[in-house]
Order: sequence, then C-alpha cells, then structure tokens
Amino acid sequence: MKENGIDNLPRRKLLANTAGVLAAGGLAGWSASAGAQTGPVAAPAAARPLPAYVAWKDPGAMIVHTGNTLETRRSAFGTSVITPNEQVYIRNNLPPPGAEIVADRDAWEVTIEGVRQPRTLTVKALKSLNLETIATVLQCSGNGRGLFPSKPSGTPWQVGAAACVVWSGVPVWAVAEMLGGVVDGMIYLTGTGGEKLPDGIDPKSVMVERSVPVAAMADALLAWEMNGVPISLAHGGPLRLIVPGYNGVNNVKYIKRLAFTREQSDAAIQKTGYRMSPPGEKGDPSQPSVWEMTSKSWINSPGPESGPVAAGLVQVKGVGFGGMQAVRAIDVSVDDGRSWKPARLVGPDLGKYAWRQFVFPISLAPGIHTLVCRVTDTQGRVQAEGRTENTGGYSNSSWRDHAIKVTVV
Amino acid sequence: MKENGIDNLPRRKLLANTAGVLAAGGLAGWSASAGAQTGPVAAPAAARPLPAYVAWKDPGAMIVHTGNTLETRRSAFGTSVITPNEQVYIRNNLPPPGAEIVADRDAWEVTIEGVRQPRTLTVKALKSLNLETIATVLQCSGNGRGLFPSKPSGTPWQVGAAACVVWSGVPVWAVAEMLGGVVDGMIYLTGTGGEKLPDGIDPKSVMVERSVPVAAMADALLAWEMNGVPISLAHGGPLRLIVPGYNGVNNVKYIKRLAFTREQSDAAIQKTGYRMSPPGEKGDPSQPSVWEMTSKSWINSPGPESGPVAAGLVQVKGVGFGGMQAVRAIDVSVDDGRSWKPARLVGPDLGKYAWRQFVFPISLAPGIHTLVCRVTDTQGRVQAEGRTENTGGYSNSSWRDHAIKVTVV
Repeated sequence: MKENGIDNLPRRKLLANTAGVLAAGGLAGWSASAGAQTGPVAAPAAARPLPAYVAWKDPGAMIVHTGNTLETRRSAFGTSVITPNEQVYIRNNLPPPGAEIVADRDAWEVTIEGVRQPRTLTVKALKSLNLETIATVLQCSGNGRGLFPSKPSGTPWQVGAAACVVWSGVPVWAVAEMLGGVVDGMIYLTGTGGEKLPDGIDPKSVMVERSVPVAAMADALLAWEMNGVPISLAHGGPLRLIVPGYNGVNNVKYIKRLAFTREQSDAAIQKTGYRMSPPGEKGDPSQPSVWEMTSKSWINSPGPESGPVAAGLVQVKGVGFGGMQAVRAIDVSVDDGRSWKPARLVGPDLGKYAWRQFVFPISLAPGIHTLVCRVTDTQGRVQAEGRTENTGGYSNSSWRDHAIKVTVV
Repeated sequence: MKENGIDNLPRRKLLANTAGVLAAGGLAGWSASAGAQTGPVAAPAAARPLPAYVAWKDPGAMIVHTGNTLETRRSAFGTSVITPNEQVYIRNNLPPPGAEIVADRDAWEVTIEGVRQPRTLTVKALKSLNLETIATVLQCSGNGRGLFPSKPSGTPWQVGAAACVVWSGVPVWAVAEMLGGVVDGMIYLTGTGGEKLPDGIDPKSVMVERSVPVAAMADALLAWEMNGVPISLAHGGPLRLIVPGYNGVNNVKYIKRLAFTREQSDAAIQKTGYRMSPPGEKGDPSQPSVWEMTSKSWINSPGPESGPVAAGLVQVKGVGFGGMQAVRAIDVSVDDGRSWKPARLVGPDLGKYAWRQFVFPISLAPGIHTLVCRVTDTQGRVQAEGRTENTGGYSNSSWRDHAIKVTVV
C-alpha cells in the first residue's frame, strides 16, 4: 500500500485548501506514504524501485520521484517518435483502482450525460460504434516545474513528464451523436475518474473530475488502446478520456462519467487546482485552467546525463510540439539565442497533436556550449523565451529554461 | 540451449541442400531441438512457453511455433498502427548470438566494403554521422504460408509473421558517401549477419548473408533503435540492416559487414534459399529471390479467435500495405469478391513502407459471413486474388486465401 498511497498529499493540501479535512480523516482511511514528497527534490531519486503497479516499466528509463510520480529519463527518450509504454511517465492524482477493473475490460461502464438520450454504455458497446486512432503528446502540466528558479512546490519534473502516444478509441462526437446530440447550452465536457475515494473526506476535495471547453470534443476520444495494447491500469484503462492538445490532467483515467455540462466541475481539482495562479496566490476559478498546451521543445541528446562529448561532429537530437497546432519548424541556437538555424525534422509526421523529432548536426570544439531550441508552429507563432510565473509551477515552455550545457572535450 | 537450437533444420536442409553435412556435423556441434518442426503444424502450439531469450515478449500475444519462430496472434494486433516490441514476431535463421554483444552497443563494429575508402565503423561512429527514422512493415517472406492449400514445408504462419515498426539509424547512403562513394560496377548491397556459426559445417551452408539490388540503399538504414528503444538482441541489435519494403530475411540482424558487391552472395540462404521456386523444384539462382514485398491486407477483427459475433453493427478492422508503394485504398467485400466497398483508413499515415489500419462498419445478420479485403496502391495496382505457387510457400498475398469466416448469432 505504501507505494500506492497518496504520496503527494502536501501538494494536494495546498491546492485543494482542505488541509484540515485531509489531515484529520483522509490519512486515517488510507495509508500515508512514507515517501511523501514535501518539496522540490534536489536530485532525481535514481535508486528508488518501481512501485508494484508499474513493475512492468523499464527501471533504467524511469526516475521514481514517488509512488505516483515517475518521470522518463531524458537519456531514455529514443528518436523513433513513439514513447514505448514501458517508458511513459506516471502521474496519478489518486492511487489507481484495483486490478479487478481491467479483468473484464469490455464490461467497464461509462455514463454519458448532457445528451438528449443519456445512457450508460459498456466498452464493448463503444467498440462496436466507431474507431479512431490519434497520436498525442501526453504531458503533465507540471512538466518543467523543476526548471522554475522559484522552486514551486510539487514534483520537480524536468522534461520527462511527457510522451508521444498513439491512442485508439471512439470519437466523443460519435457517442454524442448516437445519443441524440448534445443538449443545448452545454459548454463544457466534464469527465469523472473511477478512482476509489477514501472515506471521511469530502469527495469534491480529492476526486478527479475535470472540465474542458466543449469544443475539445471535436478530436477527443474515449480510448481503450495505447500504443497497440489495451490501456494499462496505471495509464487509465479500461477507458480513458483523451483530449488531444490538452494537458495530462484533462485526460481522465478510468472514466466512469462523461457529461456535457453548463458549468465547470466544482471538484477542487478543477475549481482551485491546476490554475495559473499569480505567484503566492491560491487557485481560484477566475484564473486560467491548465487546458491547452503551449508549444515547447527540448534537447534529449546530448543531455545532462550524457557526460562529456568528444569534439567533432555531434548530432543534437530532441523533440518539439505545437500544443494545438502542428510544428512548422524547430530551430537551434548555440549562441544563447542570438542566432538560430533550422534543425531537420526526422521520421514520420503523426499529426498535429504529436511531437516531431529533430536532429541538428554541428561540429563542436572543446569547451562548454549552451544549446537551446524553439518551435515555430504552423501559424507562425514562436515558442516563448520566458515562462509565466505561477504558484503551481505549471506550463513551463520557456526555451531559455530548457537550455542544455554540453561539455566538449 | 534447446530453445535456442536450430529448430528449423529440416527446412533448412531442404533449402540449402546440404542435408548430409548438417546431419553429420551440424547437429553434433549444436544441440538439436526437440521441438524441431518437420512439417506443417495443424494447430498453433498455444501452450508452449516463451523461449528464455524472448521472455520479455507478451505470452498472451504470441504463438510459439518453435524456439526461433514466434507468431503474433491475430487477436493481439491492436489498431494503433505500431506493433509494440513485445508483440513483434520472431523468425531467426540461426540462434541469436550471446547477450554480450548488446552489453556495449556503441562498440559493435560493422565493416563497410565496396566503397572507395572501406572501413570498419563502430555504432558510436555511425550515431555521430547522421540520423533517419522510418516506419516499415517487417514481414517474414513465409507469412501466410499456412494458408497455402499445398501445405509447403516450413512454419505455417497465418498473418502474424508481420509487424509495423519504427526504426532509427543512419542512412546507408550517408555511410557510403562518407567513405568516398560506392565503387563503380557494384550492383548489390550485401549484408552479413553476426551470428556465431557452428563448427564442422561449411559456413556458406548456414550463414545469414543476403544481397539486394543496390537501388535499395536509397531508403536503407543501419538501425540501432526499434520502436523507441535500442534494438533487442532477439530483433537484431545492436545493429540491423533495414531495407524498407523488402521481405524480413533481407533485414540482416547483428550486421557485421555491409558490402557493395558485383555478385549476389554465394551463401545458401541467397543462392538457393528464399527463391520463388516452381512447386516441387529446388531453389536456384535463376529464380526470383524474395526481395520486394507485394501489396497485402488482412482482417484482424473479427477473426477466427473472436468466436461468434453478436448481430448488428460490427467494426471490421485490419491492416493493409503496398509493398514498395503507399496504400491508396483498402476495400472490403462481403459477397466473395463480387462487389467491393472502400474501408476507412484510420490513424496516422507513417509513410509508404508502413501499413495502414482500416475500419469497415457493417451491420451483420445472423449466419456465417465470409469477409475479404484487398489493397490498391498509389499506382493503381490491386492486390492479387490468387497466390503464386512455390516450393517454399513464400509471398502469399492472395486476398482470397486471407478470407475470414465470421459466425454471427
């Protein structure tokens, strides 16, 4: 139980502002995690073993921050576009439900509300309805938090709370259409996760229920497959809501209810959590929610884990994505952003929500070099140089913060 | 050792026509496989455990024919384009080398010959030179052999000796260019595998050395990565020659020599093996070699393993590819090929050498239905109805042979 415990409670307490309730009843009902993360971690917890529920992950590829927060090592990212399941990061807001829910995947039920003919459907029924497959960047909104100089509370992700994943499932629009269409006036798509909630706590304070603008339904899926296999329990199987282009938290795992709603969810994770709060302020509904991702790129190789690099020709490799838009170009600078040269985009283009791999060949002389990269999307918008400071340390897509120092010998 | 033994010796004997030598010295030097396959197997050997060297494969997804021939179950194929590594079929002509060759992958050496400045290069050197990523259908030339009514000798593959894989490596043309270019008059690209050969047998009778037309170098890679991770030993790591569009055997594993040559290899696997020999005849160099793949498609779901399907709307799903050309369309017929309707192509297009996923929604009444599908490539060529009969049971791309009978209740 320890590794499946709520190991990010300190941060949740801050976000949900239900400190008293959680401290009183919550931890009594569940086992508190001995590995609770109470602030930024200086160095990756390299030696921690994989939690049992993700024992099938590649231990050499993962940094285990806590039982519910595992990051992909930068050096583990390959160059063949897709992130294999055994390397995909983990960030659970609550411990995963028991494995019994994936014993008969087709029997899992999701209730559809806010349509003219609301109904509860099994995964089996969804599979007979339609099929779509889409590649998306799945990224925790806190990815890059570890690069904020202000050291916000929360997992200090570097670049590895992100992956490029292919999903298969049924389009949300097809489900809505079959059920008579969306009721007039519904402006949000609200997904509720199937986590088992602890006793003695206001469910709204801990439940995973997220709302996104209803327009997101155009590309959203109720997905049962991830990179060619049924979605693992750890990644939200049997059924996960995929909202392409949106930050990870909006891609609700073990989804049990999908509702078209007039209002955003009043669960803390929506109301006060995951808000772009001005530094020092608590979250509130007036602040932007972490919905659409912004464009972002980073270098994977050479990286901080590469060690010194031999002088001469070096293939600088990395990834870039445009958030809601496709990538037009990724540029690299070796002079601190004064001049930029285009990198070459490599490999298959999996569509606008996927990332692109890039390679930038350069001959490096001995010394210390600082390399940066930035994306330009198909609308001509260039990735920002700076970050938007915020209490939660969300959405760091600053190209300057993602600079890589390479020692060449 | 049993599971790594030469378990397809009877077939190799036939192909290489060195029965005496193999029977005498070969089996003495190695352990003969108790699981030797001496003819077509009637039913998949479902219960066989995974051999130790591929213990990381998904046992539920694989049919273990022998220690060196593992097929992906039709029901295991997903719909999200890429075949995950743990599901990719295995077909080794010789047992894999020892794991020591992947202990220091960057140190693996390949000798390049038939260029103006022949040289031996490490994987590390290749990585600094260039990078390309390409998705290909990797398919054993015997895939579909089990569908030949003539029951040719050899593994009776159904559809699962095929996968869609993303590879990363260095383009062969870039290596040749760096070494001064290809010597005039070289018309083949010949790759030699790094398998350890048994003592007491003429190496030419068992070695894996394949030649392909030199034009194939335009898209060929020396690859070190497969689906985002370093190529496993079982799949030919640390370095494998990838010849997009060509049958599996031409994608030489653990490649230790890549030569531009005037002649095809005189190894048995090239000279007499893998030839489209007229039925009953032995292979000889005058017959076509199993080089370029032909267009092909098949239905994965519903399939023979699905059991009875409920009447009503069914999403028929499958894959199709064009061999050397991209897919323009995949059509489905439910009346034995008299009329065809276009299926919908689903998911990202990974390029002309990848397969496409298709879905075909149809309302099926109770009864037994026969479903067939066929590909049309971008040059307008339609997948053949029949097969080319041949001794080895190669290249079965007959749409009629790939028909699926579905029982609807």
